[in-house]
Amino acid sequence: MKIYLYRKLILSLLLLVVSSSLVSAQEEQDIETKIDQILSQLTLEEKVKLCHAQSKFSVPGVARLGIPELWMSDGPHGVRAEISWDSWKHAGWTNDSCTAFPALTALASTFNPALSREFGVAIGEEARYRHKDVLLGPGVNIYRTPLNGRNFEYMGEDPFLASTMVVPYIHGVQQNKVAACVKHYALNNQEVLRNEIDVVVDKRALHEIYLPAFKAAVVQGKVWSIMGAYNKYEGVYCCENKSLNIDILKRKWGFDGVVISDWAAAHSTKGSALYGLDIEMGTGTNGLTTSVANSYDSYYLATPLLKMLQNGQIEESVVNDKARRVLRLMMRTTMVPNRPYGSKGSKAHFDVARKVAEEGMILLRNQNNTLPIDEKSNIKIAVIGQNAVKKMTLGGGSSELKAIHEISPLQGIKDAFPEATVTHTFGYTAGETVYDVLTYPKENQDSLAMVAINQAKEADMVIFVGGLNKNYQQDCENGDRTGYNLPYNQDQLIENIANVNSNVVVVLVSGNAVAMPWRSDVKAIVQAWYSGSETGSALGNILSGKVNPSGKLPITFPKQLDDSPAHTFGKQGYPGIAKKVYYKEGILVGYRWFDTKKIDPLYCFGYGLSYTNFKMDKIHSDRKSYDKEDVITVKGEIENTGKVSGSEVIQVYVEDVKSSVLKPLQELKGFKKIKLNPLEKKTFQIKIPVSSLNYYDADNEKWVVESGRYRLRVGTSSRDIIKNIYVEVK
Amino acid sequence: MKIYLYRKLILSLLLLVVSSSLVSAQEEQDIETKIDQILSQLTLEEKVKLCHAQSKFSVPGVARLGIPELWMSDGPHGVRAEISWDSWKHAGWTNDSCTAFPALTALASTFNPALSREFGVAIGEEARYRHKDVLLGPGVNIYRTPLNGRNFEYMGEDPFLASTMVVPYIHGVQQNKVAACVKHYALNNQEVLRNEIDVVVDKRALHEIYLPAFKAAVVQGKVWSIMGAYNKYEGVYCCENKSLNIDILKRKWGFDGVVISDWAAAHSTKGSALYGLDIEMGTGTNGLTTSVANSYDSYYLATPLLKMLQNGQIEESVVNDKARRVLRLMMRTTMVPNRPYGSKGSKAHFDVARKVAEEGMILLRNQNNTLPIDEKSNIKIAVIGQNAVKKMTLGGGSSELKAIHEISPLQGIKDAFPEATVTHTFGYTAGETVYDVLTYPKENQDSLAMVAINQAKEADMVIFVGGLNKNYQQDCENGDRTGYNLPYNQDQLIENIANVNSNVVVVLVSGNAVAMPWRSDVKAIVQAWYSGSETGSALGNILSGKVNPSGKLPITFPKQLDDSPAHTFGKQGYPGIAKKVYYKEGILVGYRWFDTKKIDPLYCFGYGLSYTNFKMDKIHSDRKSYDKEDVITVKGEIENTGKVSGSEVIQVYVEDVKSSVLKPLQELKGFKKIKLNPLEKKTFQIKIPVSSLNYYDADNEKWVVESGRYRLRVGTSSRDIIKNIYVEVK
Repeated sequence: MKIYLYRKLILSLLLLVVSSSLVSAQEEQDIETKIDQILSQLTLEEKVKLCHAQSKFSVPGVARLGIPELWMSDGPHGVRAEISWDSWKHAGWTNDSCTAFPALTALASTFNPALSREFGVAIGEEARYRHKDVLLGPGVNIYRTPLNGRNFEYMGEDPFLASTMVVPYIHGVQQNKVAACVKHYALNNQEVLRNEIDVVVDKRALHEIYLPAFKAAVVQGKVWSIMGAYNKYEGVYCCENKSLNIDILKRKWGFDGVVISDWAAAHSTKGSALYGLDIEMGTGTNGLTTSVANSYDSYYLATPLLKMLQNGQIEESVVNDKARRVLRLMMRTTMVPNRPYGSKGSKAHFDVARKVAEEGMILLRNQNNTLPIDEKSNIKIAVIGQNAVKKMTLGGGSSELKAIHEISPLQGIKDAFPEATVTHTFGYTAGETVYDVLTYPKENQDSLAMVAINQAKEADMVIFVGGLNKNYQQDCENGDRTGYNLPYNQDQLIENIANVNSNVVVVLVSGNAVAMPWRSDVKAIVQAWYSGSETGSALGNILSGKVNPSGKLPITFPKQLDDSPAHTFGKQGYPGIAKKVYYKEGILVGYRWFDTKKIDPLYCFGYGLSYTNFKMDKIHSDRKSYDKEDVITVKGEIENTGKVSGSEVIQVYVEDVKSSVLKPLQELKGFKKIKLNPLEKKTFQIKIPVSSLNYYDADNEKWVVESGRYRLRVGTSSRDIIKNIYVEVK
Repeated sequence: MKIYLYRKLILSLLLLVVSSSLVSAQEEQDIETKIDQILSQLTLEEKVKLCHAQSKFSVPGVARLGIPELWMSDGPHGVRAEISWDSWKHAGWTNDSCTAFPALTALASTFNPALSREFGVAIGEEARYRHKDVLLGPGVNIYRTPLNGRNFEYMGEDPFLASTMVVPYIHGVQQNKVAACVKHYALNNQEVLRNEIDVVVDKRALHEIYLPAFKAAVVQGKVWSIMGAYNKYEGVYCCENKSLNIDILKRKWGFDGVVISDWAAAHSTKGSALYGLDIEMGTGTNGLTTSVANSYDSYYLATPLLKMLQNGQIEESVVNDKARRVLRLMMRTTMVPNRPYGSKGSKAHFDVARKVAEEGMILLRNQNNTLPIDEKSNIKIAVIGQNAVKKMTLGGGSSELKAIHEISPLQGIKDAFPEATVTHTFGYTAGETVYDVLTYPKENQDSLAMVAINQAKEADMVIFVGGLNKNYQQDCENGDRTGYNLPYNQDQLIENIANVNSNVVVVLVSGNAVAMPWRSDVKAIVQAWYSGSETGSALGNILSGKVNPSGKLPITFPKQLDDSPAHTFGKQGYPGIAKKVYYKEGILVGYRWFDTKKIDPLYCFGYGLSYTNFKMDKIHSDRKSYDKEDVITVKGEIENTGKVSGSEVIQVYVEDVKSSVLKPLQELKGFKKIKLNPLEKKTFQIKIPVSSLNYYDADNEKWVVESGRYRLRVGTSSRDIIKNIYVEVK
């Protein structure tokens, strides 16, 4: 009897202990119960207020019930400086600087999901420290054309890569109890005409190419919010698109979060209300309304919605659903118990920024092992190009940042080569220059070029740091590039420099592929992207070999723009005709196009060199034949046969050898990045669910895996396939 | 053996359960340990940064370590609207309205400590909802002269009353994990010359009159911050006053919180650093510096402090102590686990505001039971006076508020008497008027008066709503009143109205005593203070009898200014000569002066009428003789002998019958507010520790309780003593 009592007591106590670390499912249930309680107390007006902005970047809570406001911030690469209550002017605070992380194209280039999580954790901490509840990113629109001004904010051209990289980013951000807001849903693949363009795309391409990263964000990433895009699909604006928001996002994918409009992307009350928008932001605050006091009340989802609810044109269940979603978002963020405090500008954050920059930079060319440069050499280095000093955290649109610091490429080169004599000259200049290192007299481009060529003549080596620059139409929101070549006559300048110096390294600072007519005339090319606060230190480490490059292209660099699928079909294909753009290439986006159409790219998807050599061996699949529920395991060995440690990204592309429908020649289905010391050998495993070898059957609206033979193409880029393995799917 | 194991397991589990609801002492120890850890990571620069503002109302945290910023807000009666980052302009937000609670003089008038706690809880919730970490209040400077422009922010003339009321307020605020900041420490008893005046006061008056409320705030209230005043004491500015800050506050009282300067009240680096200031706010941001970027770095406790630390002029232990205090404040507020969310503008908050307003309003006169007015009477009421409609949450200085709503006296009267015909006219006008009910042509005061007198003639009753108005020199920061009489010729106006209407009720909206030459000509007088959002509804309830007045004066109303102790000694006594003001009245402040000097006041301290009558009986002390460690218990019965329920405040004053030093005739040492239904009788107990019958022996710097005979004077005001009880202290 006594023992029985003791047992009972222990059970009760255990229950108490366990209940203090509640499981997630119970927490979720508790949240819904609490939301029910809150909803029952809300007036119709209060519910409506939850569905639209009260300022540029905030949504009211319910003050009387102690439900806090929700604050949002741009953007995916760092937490933007404070914006005024009701204008786009900076608020003029001094506590709103941030760690500038590399742009997401750089992150995608790392092919390192663990690093993506670190990125997410760090930027989430900064958002939290800055009291932001929703971080407006990441962006996962597929890279369709090199002209898209906002490609730098996205994760490349491949849906599998983008999906794989976005999920840990979201987990990282959200572990800080800050919502990620994956954007721009959907088909926002160009900036030109973004507010009116209607995207005509077949359902297969939609589901296989443009939606998977969003789906992964929702289903695997469990993202708490998603941003509705500016453009239209099927003739309907994205923020009121039943097909996208209701049928696919909320029903098929089971999204339980909040659809937030891009700023001023809502266009009607009834459409927005009925077809998926939950929070309307940015409408009519660009001077479109004369009365500030009225502007937020006059939002589509404000007084007009209230009136339609009151007169029965819209059922109350509609606003209940929205309010429930917004409250759920609040429960997950502002109202979560024991929310962490976040932090900002820590060494850890800058370390993450530098690590992503280092792993994201891609060595595209390296003749005669020009790189790395010996850090102890006392050579004369002529650094040429405005991008060697231009602050790239400024400009670009909503992704602009007030960086705590931004180490320029020039500074990074100087730091990396303390024994060298480093000079710098612009060589060219953009219209809006930021002369923060040197002040130049206003000469014309020719004379700038002349100075540069003279410096190049006298140098042992030239490091040309150019590219694009986040000015309007040079990788910037709300405008696309107008051509594929480098601007400001850089192509000619590089040629001229190469004519006087045989030792030219080109560092491309850009978020897009560019033409390289001068490629064979330069010794080495580094694609450096927009790499944030630590751009210079990362570049210095790469150039000096302190860090061995391991980045891989998340996009294809076409030789010329016309080779690119979006540009094969004239203006219909891009930028559209009569406000419609036709994605005529269908599923053949990026390398899928180049490989299937057998077009040689300048640099192929997945490409990137190293300072060491890797050898792969014993590559095989665990079996020859699989059922549709099985997981294929590709195994093998990889060895670093060179003299420095380095990382290789082993990539598995899959070819459906004989398909009943059109399929790309190959599609990335698995990858793994492996770090090896010199002469170190490791085994690897890459798992590919057979279910992922599917295609979207648009007629029947379902995913299909065909039986038959598949070829697993294992390599180090989409065009460096080392081993083919044939497997059978039953 | 088995039982032994079970026992052991149970003990472990119990330990686990208990440890999850840690006791306060352990928490405090944990905080200090955590502060040690943080301090060991901080650079000297980071420590210095914790000691001064980064904007008008914020102090930086340590972003890289995830230590959040600290945000402060005026003021004691409601959370002020957002102020710009670096100017006094309103920030122009729309989410920064608040519940306007009554000014603290109204709160003190309630003689209701439980209600003070409710006030604190509610305003703390509003501060928390608005993301404020430090609420810059309450104010407990002793009411020394009716001219002081800021008296309305304080708790009256009696140290015991102020002490008793401030403690629960602080507890209420701080239970929200928002720091109260008791102010203005010390001797800030006038606004005129506040930035330069040196207060000359004897040590006994300092300790017995001016410090007790601060001491109570620190010792009993455990307040987390205190604000250093503008003025000087003993020739030294308060923010660098060793005697006040180090010897008394931090050493004697054991204050472990933060001394925050009033805005621009710091005057040197070394003095501030060594003699008690922990956070410097407001210096040089009033256009005194030309460069915004420099202004915060140039604070006394910024770069100048850093330099003195670096060159050894100030020891690092000094900044360590400050940083430790600031971090401790952060641990208690921004970094406390599971901080509540707060709330704003809830029904509960407005209810508290109304309750304080109702209990704080004082019925000073009520001839022929003029009040209450039957709520069903269909009489014609002429409401006269600008204060019937003037918004009193505006103006006054830093205590200005953006009230969610402010029910005007006129509205309250209209609502209270729906059957009556209510007219309103200004009768007089202040320079800056707020015509938010009626728009007047620009006539002179005489014509305004004429209109009023005509309306008065035709009415059955006049409710004159006048007083002061929070304009400059009419109850406002940074300037005192220039006379004791009502401004704008109101005295004459009231006389003239009384000449044509025999049924005049005067409602005084003011934070100060005023002269009443017209007193005997009016039927009733209500002192309504500045009562916040619910002023009108509370007043309506009082006038209609829905609420029975129970407020008691926390100040003496002198008949004339010269009767007032501060004004007995010429300019030396007020406002001072050659930047020195001499508190020549010493300990004889307020009723202590009037009673000791046998001067009849207009209305005495503790005074206030009711619509019912109370009868006290069987009043006695529990014993006749006490040791110095004992507690005297005064017991008795009180009965409501009238026809409506009501509350009476039983007050116990103590007279030291024969003292070796000068003592006031009597001092308040205990009170209790008791609510009674008609004919209900209750017993009461009021406890008075013998130790509280002390005086401050300045020569020996200690508190002394003299043995001998004391008279306990039990009554319903300082001059309505119902029972005298003699006791012996051994």
